[in-house]
Amino acid sequence: MSGNSFSQKGSPDHGRPVLFRNARLATLAVGGEGLGIVEKGALLIENGRIAFAGAESDLPLSALGRSEIVDLEGRWITPGLIDCHTHLVHAGNRAHEFELRLAGATYEDVAKAGGGIVSSVKALRAASEEDLLRQTLPRLDALIAEGVTTVEVKSGYGLDLENERKTLTVARRLGGERPVSICTSFLGAHALPPEADGDKQAYIDRVANEMLPAIAAERLADAVDGFCEGIAFSPEQIAQVFRAAQKHGLPVKLHADQLSNLHGAKLAAEFGALSVDHMEYTDEAGVIAMAKAGTVAVLLPGAFYFIREKQLPPVEQLRKHGVKIAIATDCNPGTSPLTSLLLTMNMSATLFRLTVDECIAGVTREAARVLGILSETGTLEVGKWADLAIWDIERPAELVYRMGFNPLHRRIWRGQ
Amino acid sequence: MSGNSFSQKGSPDHGRPVLFRNARLATLAVGGEGLGIVEKGALLIENGRIAFAGAESDLPLSALGRSEIVDLEGRWITPGLIDCHTHLVHAGNRAHEFELRLAGATYEDVAKAGGGIVSSVKALRAASEEDLLRQTLPRLDALIAEGVTTVEVKSGYGLDLENERKTLTVARRLGGERPVSICTSFLGAHALPPEADGDKQAYIDRVANEMLPAIAAERLADAVDGFCEGIAFSPEQIAQVFRAAQKHGLPVKLHADQLSNLHGAKLAAEFGALSVDHMEYTDEAGVIAMAKAGTVAVLLPGAFYFIREKQLPPVEQLRKHGVKIAIATDCNPGTSPLTSLLLTMNMSATLFRLTVDECIAGVTREAARVLGILSETGTLEVGKWADLAIWDIERPAELVYRMGFNPLHRRIWRGQ
Ligand SMILES: [Zn+2]
Ligand SMILES: [Zn+2]
Repeated sequence: MSGNSFSQKGSPDHGRPVLFRNARLATLAVGGEGLGIVEKGALLIENGRIAFAGAESDLPLSALGRSEIVDLEGRWITPGLIDCHTHLVHAGNRAHEFELRLAGATYEDVAKAGGGIVSSVKALRAASEEDLLRQTLPRLDALIAEGVTTVEVKSGYGLDLENERKTLTVARRLGGERPVSICTSFLGAHALPPEADGDKQAYIDRVANEMLPAIAAERLADAVDGFCEGIAFSPEQIAQVFRAAQKHGLPVKLHADQLSNLHGAKLAAEFGALSVDHMEYTDEAGVIAMAKAGTVAVLLPGAFYFIREKQLPPVEQLRKHGVKIAIATDCNPGTSPLTSLLLTMNMSATLFRLTVDECIAGVTREAARVLGILSETGTLEVGKWADLAIWDIERPAELVYRMGFNPLHRRIWRGQ
Repeated sequence: MSGNSFSQKGSPDHGRPVLFRNARLATLAVGGEGLGIVEKGALLIENGRIAFAGAESDLPLSALGRSEIVDLEGRWITPGLIDCHTHLVHAGNRAHEFELRLAGATYEDVAKAGGGIVSSVKALRAASEEDLLRQTLPRLDALIAEGVTTVEVKSGYGLDLENERKTLTVARRLGGERPVSICTSFLGAHALPPEADGDKQAYIDRVANEMLPAIAAERLADAVDGFCEGIAFSPEQIAQVFRAAQKHGLPVKLHADQLSNLHGAKLAAEFGALSVDHMEYTDEAGVIAMAKAGTVAVLLPGAFYFIREKQLPPVEQLRKHGVKIAIATDCNPGTSPLTSLLLTMNMSATLFRLTVDECIAGVTREAARVLGILSETGTLEVGKWADLAIWDIERPAELVYRMGFNPLHRRIWRGQ
């Protein structure tokens, strides 16, 4: 059964420092080599923050006397996992649509049976804030049960101010319901709402001029996202939304080049985007623009797998030009009903041929970079929040290699 | 964290009948339509067996008074899940090999670094019975946490009498350690042990004339399995093993046509095999032979996914000729480190285009048929063991649609 965050074994005593000894660390330290491995490691938590992370032999003697000491018997500590791209807050599911497709239904049949993204919009609008929260918590708990300590959550099924606000409010409330950090993204430019009657430009005007300013004023979003695609919005329309975001001081990110190459990666990089997400059809010019801008690539193998895409993201070019790579569940009801970052790592390796080190960095350090919170979490470095996952494994590769197995021993969020 | 079987909420009182009311049933009844759905259902457990499963309105009044009554609030009951093809008992893992491959290592590099099946043989031989049991239980617990009540376990990493015996002994002991039914298969003809020095025929003689008779005499195996492939054993060698199995009254099954078509399916069918497993390269003649013999197809999408096969099993031909289809994890360290039947269902749908009904039947009724235990479990029918899974879902398709999410509410094995 998927546990919840309160099933953690024990909890360090509040107030008193906690010292984990006899641990193996994958620090993921910024600028370090590979996973930043420390074989005979120790990690000290003080006031919810990492006060020491390194070789036991380098541990200041003073730390020993005043700490509660926990012997980890050689277990591995990694940074707490970060899911940097989710649509976790949604209502209902699209299992019936999935079933119809497998039975041979066409897209038209599915639409007639009430399927497609419109069904998710209708369900979200019909759900109360409480109901939406109640439906979302099991998905959050599934992530948390695998050592996730930070989750990004997008709006984008509301598609009007009231319902986008409701979505982001629920996202914020998740952080009060569970010991987890939540980052939010306003994704008004996700799809055209049914009442827009095909007029994309009028809807984008509303997103840029009414919805975004209100969401920004209420501080409900940490970033602004969009979906640049033939079936969604044009590069010009996305640029309009991004200009509005800049005006309100919000960083941007983009769902781009998933099904075709509209040069969304390049556009996002020109706006200094935190990330470009999906990227199956991004060309080298787009990758180079991202490298220049320091924009991170977020690869989403769950959607690639679920909708049976064939076009692989340009992993070799990302490596060649030094673009950082993060990976995420893209948890959503239509194209990626995935609530496991461990499985996301396996899919990234198996389907996209990311290395073990790239997979683990992609759900820790690079995911923190995407969210603009790398100074606070995402690596085991002194001064950052003590967001940790402790694993019953012999080597980090086991986190990527297995499918449907959770070796989490214990999870710590902000020292607890 | 992956739970274990003892984390089930409550347990029906031993002795007194238990009646689940307000349930939706997927009975999977033999000869019935689809999933055998009963919308307003009830299920009565008496002495560990199903005493009633059907519409609440058909429930005999006498059942009400003498039973402990549990209101399931509309939850779904399916038969307990059955994993009908696993190599669950193994030592160590091959995560390092996986890591090397992702980093660009060739098969030769991996072999030099001590990888490949030989490494699993060495590790199993080096492990004590207790150690092997200890290493296997977390994998079994992961299956059980998703509602699995029966698991098939193969030998095949021992490759000499002592170590094959050890493997099957541990497999049998699993059933004493956890509330789960275990079926065992002797897979001496899995691979050539290093000491055989390339002499396949001499090894097969040993399997057929020494190992198999001893294993049969000790009643350690419920069936005999083999691996028919260029990299394993020839059809003639497999036939020799199957003749020995027949002599000792043991049913047979076969890993066949996974990487090439050696007509293993046809061979197995001629021996009246319970199942043919993998089948990516099976041709229509093989399918027709299976249909005639009543041999079940066991599809293994975890291995297909993990080793990135392109050749799909002949699902349309299986349907056309009426061959029953089961699906399984194939849990093994080399090609399918998978411990989730829920994910196996998703992979079967996503990769092989099985329907929702086929997936669910494939881990219940048809999996029981593969193991020759359909008269005892695998469906919700009167007289069978009360092996049940109770789910927090709105429709059965959710079991197949989600990835990395476990909606199990409660699991019952033999009424407990
Ligand atoms: Zn997305
Ligand atoms: Zn197998």
